[in-house]
Amino acid sequence: MQRIDGRAADELRPFSISGDFLLHPLASVLVQCGRTRVVCAVSCEHKVPSWMKAQQIHGGWITCEYSMLPGSTGERIRRETAGGKPNGRSLEIQRLIGRSMRSVADLEALGERTFYCDCDVMDADGGTRCASISGAAAALMLAARSSKTAGWFPRPPLKELVAAVSVGIIDGEPMLDLCYEEDSRAEVDMNVVMTESGRFVELQGTAERAPFDRRQLNTLLELAEHGLKQIFAAQRQLLEVF
Amino acid sequence: MQRIDGRAADELRPFSISGDFLLHPLASVLVQCGRTRVVCAVSCEHKVPSWMKAQQIHGGWITCEYSMLPGSTGERIRRETAGGKPNGRSLEIQRLIGRSMRSVADLEALGERTFYCDCDVMDADGGTRCASISGAAAALMLAARSSKTAGWFPRPPLKELVAAVSVGIIDGEPMLDLCYEEDSRAEVDMNVVMTESGRFVELQGTAERAPFDRRQLNTLLELAEHGLKQIFAAQRQLLEVF
Amino acid sequence: MQRIDGRAADELRPFSISGDFLLHPLASVLVQCGRTRVVCAVSCEHKVPSWMKAQQIHGGWITCEYSMLPGSTGERIRRETAGGKPNGRSLEIQRLIGRSMRSVADLEALGERTFYCDCDVMDADGGTRCASISGAAAALMLAARSSKTAGWFPRPPLKELVAAVSVGIIDGEPMLDLCYEEDSRAEVDMNVVMTESGRFVELQGTAERAPFDRRQLNTLLELAEHGLKQIFAAQRQLLEVF
Amino acid sequence: MQRIDGRAADELRPFSISGDFLLHPLASVLVQCGRTRVVCAVSCEHKVPSWMKAQQIHGGWITCEYSMLPGSTGERIRRETAGGKPNGRSLEIQRLIGRSMRSVADLEALGERTFYCDCDVMDADGGTRCASISGAAAALMLAARSSKTAGWFPRPPLKELVAAVSVGIIDGEPMLDLCYEEDSRAEVDMNVVMTESGRFVELQGTAERAPFDRRQLNTLLELAEHGLKQIFAAQRQLLEVF
Amino acid sequence: MQRIDGRAADELRPFSISGDFLLHPLASVLVQCGRTRVVCAVSCEHKVPSWMKAQQIHGGWITCEYSMLPGSTGERIRRETAGGKPNGRSLEIQRLIGRSMRSVADLEALGERTFYCDCDVMDADGGTRCASISGAAAALMLAARSSKTAGWFPRPPLKELVAAVSVGIIDGEPMLDLCYEEDSRAEVDMNVVMTESGRFVELQGTAERAPFDRRQLNTLLELAEHGLKQIFAAQRQLLEVF
Amino acid sequence: MQRIDGRAADELRPFSISGDFLLHPLASVLVQCGRTRVVCAVSCEHKVPSWMKAQQIHGGWITCEYSMLPGSTGERIRRETAGGKPNGRSLEIQRLIGRSMRSVADLEALGERTFYCDCDVMDADGGTRCASISGAAAALMLAARSSKTAGWFPRPPLKELVAAVSVGIIDGEPMLDLCYEEDSRAEVDMNVVMTESGRFVELQGTAERAPFDRRQLNTLLELAEHGLKQIFAAQRQLLEVF
Repeated sequence: MQRIDGRAADELRPFSISGDFLLHPLASVLVQCGRTRVVCAVSCEHKVPSWMKAQQIHGGWITCEYSMLPGSTGERIRRETAGGKPNGRSLEIQRLIGRSMRSVADLEALGERTFYCDCDVMDADGGTRCASISGAAAALMLAARSSKTAGWFPRPPLKELVAAVSVGIIDGEPMLDLCYEEDSRAEVDMNVVMTESGRFVELQGTAERAPFDRRQLNTLLELAEHGLKQIFAAQRQLLEVF
Repeated sequence: MQRIDGRAADELRPFSISGDFLLHPLASVLVQCGRTRVVCAVSCEHKVPSWMKAQQIHGGWITCEYSMLPGSTGERIRRETAGGKPNGRSLEIQRLIGRSMRSVADLEALGERTFYCDCDVMDADGGTRCASISGAAAALMLAARSSKTAGWFPRPPLKELVAAVSVGIIDGEPMLDLCYEEDSRAEVDMNVVMTESGRFVELQGTAERAPFDRRQLNTLLELAEHGLKQIFAAQRQLLEVF
Repeated sequence: MQRIDGRAADELRPFSISGDFLLHPLASVLVQCGRTRVVCAVSCEHKVPSWMKAQQIHGGWITCEYSMLPGSTGERIRRETAGGKPNGRSLEIQRLIGRSMRSVADLEALGERTFYCDCDVMDADGGTRCASISGAAAALMLAARSSKTAGWFPRPPLKELVAAVSVGIIDGEPMLDLCYEEDSRAEVDMNVVMTESGRFVELQGTAERAPFDRRQLNTLLELAEHGLKQIFAAQRQLLEVF
Repeated sequence: MQRIDGRAADELRPFSISGDFLLHPLASVLVQCGRTRVVCAVSCEHKVPSWMKAQQIHGGWITCEYSMLPGSTGERIRRETAGGKPNGRSLEIQRLIGRSMRSVADLEALGERTFYCDCDVMDADGGTRCASISGAAAALMLAARSSKTAGWFPRPPLKELVAAVSVGIIDGEPMLDLCYEEDSRAEVDMNVVMTESGRFVELQGTAERAPFDRRQLNTLLELAEHGLKQIFAAQRQLLEVF
Repeated sequence: MQRIDGRAADELRPFSISGDFLLHPLASVLVQCGRTRVVCAVSCEHKVPSWMKAQQIHGGWITCEYSMLPGSTGERIRRETAGGKPNGRSLEIQRLIGRSMRSVADLEALGERTFYCDCDVMDADGGTRCASISGAAAALMLAARSSKTAGWFPRPPLKELVAAVSVGIIDGEPMLDLCYEEDSRAEVDMNVVMTESGRFVELQGTAERAPFDRRQLNTLLELAEHGLKQIFAAQRQLLEVF
Repeated sequence: MQRIDGRAADELRPFSISGDFLLHPLASVLVQCGRTRVVCAVSCEHKVPSWMKAQQIHGGWITCEYSMLPGSTGERIRRETAGGKPNGRSLEIQRLIGRSMRSVADLEALGERTFYCDCDVMDADGGTRCASISGAAAALMLAARSSKTAGWFPRPPLKELVAAVSVGIIDGEPMLDLCYEEDSRAEVDMNVVMTESGRFVELQGTAERAPFDRRQLNTLLELAEHGLKQIFAAQRQLLEVF
C-alpha cells in the first residue's frame, strides 16, 4: 500500500534540526519533520519552583511549554489570551515534553536553576509533539555545552539524548511517522519516546477507532525504533557542529 | 518481595462497584479499589457540542469530567474556584477517561445527545484514573439499560465494556495495581485500558525514574491483563443485579 | 393541610449524621436530611490568612467552602472549572457557613492554624446550606476532640454547638424544613442558625413572593426552634460515639 | 449612652435622596445617609436573560449590581479588573439588592425588558447596602414614571416602595443606623428590608460577636421600623418633585 | 462652519475643576468638560511595585487607573467583573494617564511610596481621557500640598502641571475639544498632552477615516495650545483656593 | 555623534521582507529590521464580528494580534496562558496595528469577511510594533493578490500601502529607527505610521524623560519620512516578486 505522500510504511519524513534559530535564548533550534516545523528555545532562571523549596528538594528543574502559532494550522487557532479557553491538549502535550526531558536529566547537576524549554509550532502537519521532544532534547544539550553556561554544572545535566516519533495503524496497516492527513484517519495512534540507549521513557498509545492487540503493538514498537535511529543521527549531527 | 500492604506482586487490591449511589443522575456507581473511592455519575443533555453541529457530524457525544474533593488526599487540595489554577493533571485525566469511553461507544446509536460522566474522587490512595474508567464504563452501561432511557436507542450505545488498571516497576520488580505509596516510589508507571474482548484502547507508560525495555513492557502487560479480568468480573456482577 | 411528603407542618425530615466518612481529613461526617446528603470534612493548615498577619490579629481562623457535585441535582450543574462562571450563590452560602462556625469558635484557642471545612453536596433536595452548617459544626467538634489534634489547644476551640434549619411559608402556612419542591413554591424562605444554648447567630429571611409580618415571623422562629432541638440531639448522639 | 457621633440610639443619620445625578441613564439618584454616598442608576435592555427564555417565563427582569469606587473607603480598594479576585461580599450584596427590588416588582408589567440598577458607592461610612436598596427603589420608581418610558407598561412595574436600614447591638445596647465605626464594634448587625406597607421582604441578622435572643430581636425590629418611616418619607418627597 | 453645540472651531467647552469631591482619599477632584464628568482621586501606599525592588530603582511610583461607571454612557457599559472581557481601551487609556503624570513627577522625591490616581468617569460626552489627565494632575498637586502629607517629601514631587485636550478634523476642518458626537464623525482625532511650560509629553494622532498631512498637523497643534492655556488657568484657580 | 551600532543619526537598520514564511496562512511574511524579526500571517474567516451585525454595518473587518515568543527577548517572557496577566502593552500594540491596517483598507470591498493578521515576534531588538505594521501591510497586500482569494473582491481591499518607523531623541539628538538599547535610553520615543502617499495615519510620541518642543517634533517627522521611503521600497520589491 502506498501512502498519501508516496512514502513506504516504514519511511520517516525528511527530518532535520538546525541550531541558533533565535537571537536571545541560551540555545535554540528549528526542527523540521516533513512540513512540520517547531522552534525549541532554552532559557534559564536562577531559581526553582516554590514547591521544590517547600519540599526541600535539592537540584534544579526543567519546565517545557508548548504552543501553536495562530497561523500554524489550516484553520487559524484562536489565541488563548484573546478569549480562548485554557487548552487541555496543549497542557497535556507540554506535560509529556517536560517528563521526557526530566527522564534523561540529572536534576542535581543543574544546580538551583530552572530551565525553560519553549516549543512553538510554526507549521503543523502532524507529529508536532514528537518533533518538540526531539528538538527540545537537542536544544537542552546545546544549552548545556554553550559557552554561556560554562562552569555552571559539576557534570553534564543531561545524561543522554531522548527523542520521539509517532506510529499508527491505518486501514489495518502499521505505519511510521504519520502526517496530519494520515493521523486524522488512523485507527491507532502511538507516540514513542525513547532514550538513545534504546529504552522507553514514554509510551502513549490511543485507539481512536479500533482497539489493537499485542501483535500489532509489537510491530508498532519496531517501526518506532527504526525511525528513532534516524532522528538520533540528526541530533548527533547538529551537536557535532556546535 | 512483600509489598507495603502485604499483597503479592500480581495481586489486585479488593475491588468492588456498587450502583445507585446518587439520587438524581441517570445512573451512578461507587467504585472502590482498596482505599480509593470514586463516584461516577451519568447525566444526559439532549443536544451535542457545537463543533459537532459545525462539522455536521451525526450521532451523540460522551464527555467525562474528573475532579478530586478537597479532602480526598492527605494534604487538602485547593478548589480551582477558590483561586486555584486550571489543573493540567485533571484535564489530562478527563481527556483519557473520555477517549476510553468513546472507544467502545456507538456514538450514532446515542442519537443527538451528550452523556456526561462525572468522576469525583472521594478518597485517593492511588489508581484514581483507572478506577474512574472502570466505574464510568459500568455507570454508562447502567444508564443505557435504565428504565429512564427506555426507547432512546435503536441499538446499545456501548458496544462492550472497558476497564483500566495500573501497573508499575518498583525496585526493578513489576507489580499490579499500585497504591499511592508504591506509586510515589515507582520507577515506571503504566495505565492499561482494555476492552472486555482483550484489546488495548489506551496504553500510557511513563518512566518516572528509570527507562524500561521491551521485556519489562511485556511483563507489565501480562500483569495488567490478569488484574483486568477481575475488574470485568466485578462490572459484570453489578450489571446482573440491575 | 398535608405536605407533599406527608409530613406535618412542624415535622422535621429524617435527620442523621454519621462520622468518619472520608479517609484523609482530620474529621468528616455525612449529614442526611431527608434525601439531601452533604459531606463535611475538616482539614488544617498550620498558618493563618495573610490579612490576619497584616492586621496583627492573634489566634486562628475557620474557612468554609461549599460546592455541589455536578450530579447532585435534577439538572446537571456545570463545574466552574469547565467554563462555568464564579458562582454567587455558592460564595454567599460559604460565607454564611463560615460566619456560623466562627460565631461559636474561640479563635484564640485554635492557635496559629486555619481550619478548612469543606461541604460538598452529594444529593440536593432542599436545605443544603442548613445541613452543611449542622454537619460542619459536628465535624469541627470531632476534629477538636480527635486524637490527631491531641495537645494542640489550650482549651476547646468550639465554645458550643451550632446548627441550622430552614422554615418557610407556603400557601400562607408556616412550615418546618422545606424540601426542594416546597422551597420552589414558598412565599417566604428563612434560614435560622442557632447555638445549642438557644440564641440566634444568623437569621436570613427572604420574601420570594409575598412580604411577611411580625406575627408570621414569630411563628417561623418557633417552628425553627422546635426542629433545631432534634438536630442538636443528633449532633450530641454522634459526639458520644466518638 | 451617647453614640460616637452624638446621636440617640433610635436616631437616623441625616438622610436624603436627590434625582437626575447622571446624564445618560433612564433615571439616577444620589443617596446620602450621613457620610455614606451611593449613586443608583437605572438602564434598560429590551431583552431578558437567556434562562428566562429557556424556561419560557413571561415578563421582564431586574438585575442589580453593586460596586465601590477604589477611593470610597479609608484604605483604597483594589479594582477587580486590576488583578483583584471576584468579590464575594459584592456578589452577596447585589443579590440582596436585586431580590429586594423584585419583591415589590410586577415583572409581567415590565414586558420583555431587563432593568439594570447600578449602585456605585462613592463614599462609604457604613450602611452602603441599605442606602443602595433605598436609592435603587427610588430610581426604579423614577424610571417607571419617566417620559422616556411613557407607554411601555400596561400598569406600574413597581407595586410599592421598598427601603432598608441597618440596626445592631453595641455593648449590649440596640441601636439604629450604624456608621462604619459602630458597625466594626457591633456584637450583632441586622439589615431590615421592608415595604412601605410595613411588611418584611428581607431580614438578615448576623451575630458577629455575641448571639442574640428573641427579646433583643424584637427591639431591633422596632428600631428599624422607626427609621424606615423617615426613609420612606424622603423617597416620597423626591417622587413628588419628579 | 457652526458646530453641533454652537461653538466656534477654536472654542473649548465650559471647563471646571472642583476639589474635595470624595471623603476618604488624600485628594480628589471633579473635572467637568462640557457634559463630561470625571472623578479623580489620589491614594497612597507606603511601598513600591515589586519590579522596582527587583531592579533596585530608588524613589516612588505613580499608577493611574481609568474606568467608566456602567451608566456613564448612552448604552450601559457591562462591568468587567460581571463577565465582561478585560478592556483594551481602558488599559490603553490608563497607561497614557500614568505616563503623563510620571513625565512631570520627581519620582525620587516621592520616597518609597506608590500614588494611585483613580479616574472614574461619571458622565461621558467625549474627551474623557483628556479630562482624566487634567484632573489627575490637579489632584496629585493637591495631594502633594495636603496637610495629610506634610513632611513626606524633601521637595515637591510634581515638577510642574500637565494637562490634555483633544483636537480633530471634521469635514476637513480642524476643531478643538470634540464632544462625543463630533468625535464619532471625525476623520482625525488627536490627544495632546502638554506641560504648563508648553512642551509635549504625549502626542497621539489617529486618522480614523482620512490620513492627514503636515500642514493640518500644525493647525491641530495650535488649536490644542490655545485650549490648554484655559485648562491650566482652571487648574491654577483650584490650587489657589486649597 | 556615533550610534551604538555605528549608524548615522538618519540611518535605517538593514530592512527586508520575505514572503511565504508559513505553510498554511493565506499569506505570510518575515520582516527583519536589524536584529528584530517578526512573522506576519494573514488568515480569513468568512464572517464578521457580532457587533458589526448588531449595528448593521456592511463590509468586512481586519483584526490584528500581536504577541512575543517567550524566547524573543533577553529575559524570557512569561506566556499569558501560563499564569501571566492580560498584557496591556500587547493590547495597546495590536490596537495600533489594527487601526493602521483599517486606515488604508476598503472594508466594503472585503465583503462579509474578517481578515486576521497575526504578528508574532521571534526576535526583539526594538521597533517590533513598527516592523509588525510594515509586515502586516505587505502580508495583507499579498493575501489580496493571492490565487487563493481570486474572485473574492470587487476591487482591491487595500487602497494603498502603509508602513511605520520609530524615531526618538537621545542625549538631545533626534535619531531614526532606535534599537532596543537606544530605546531604553531615549528621552522621547515616537512611532510614525504613514501611507505610501505620504500622509500620517498614526502619530504616537511619548516623552519618557524630557518633554519636546515643536522644532524637535518637526525634525523627528523628517527623519521618519526619510526612513519610511526605504521601507516602502522594500514592500514594493516583495510585491513585485509575488
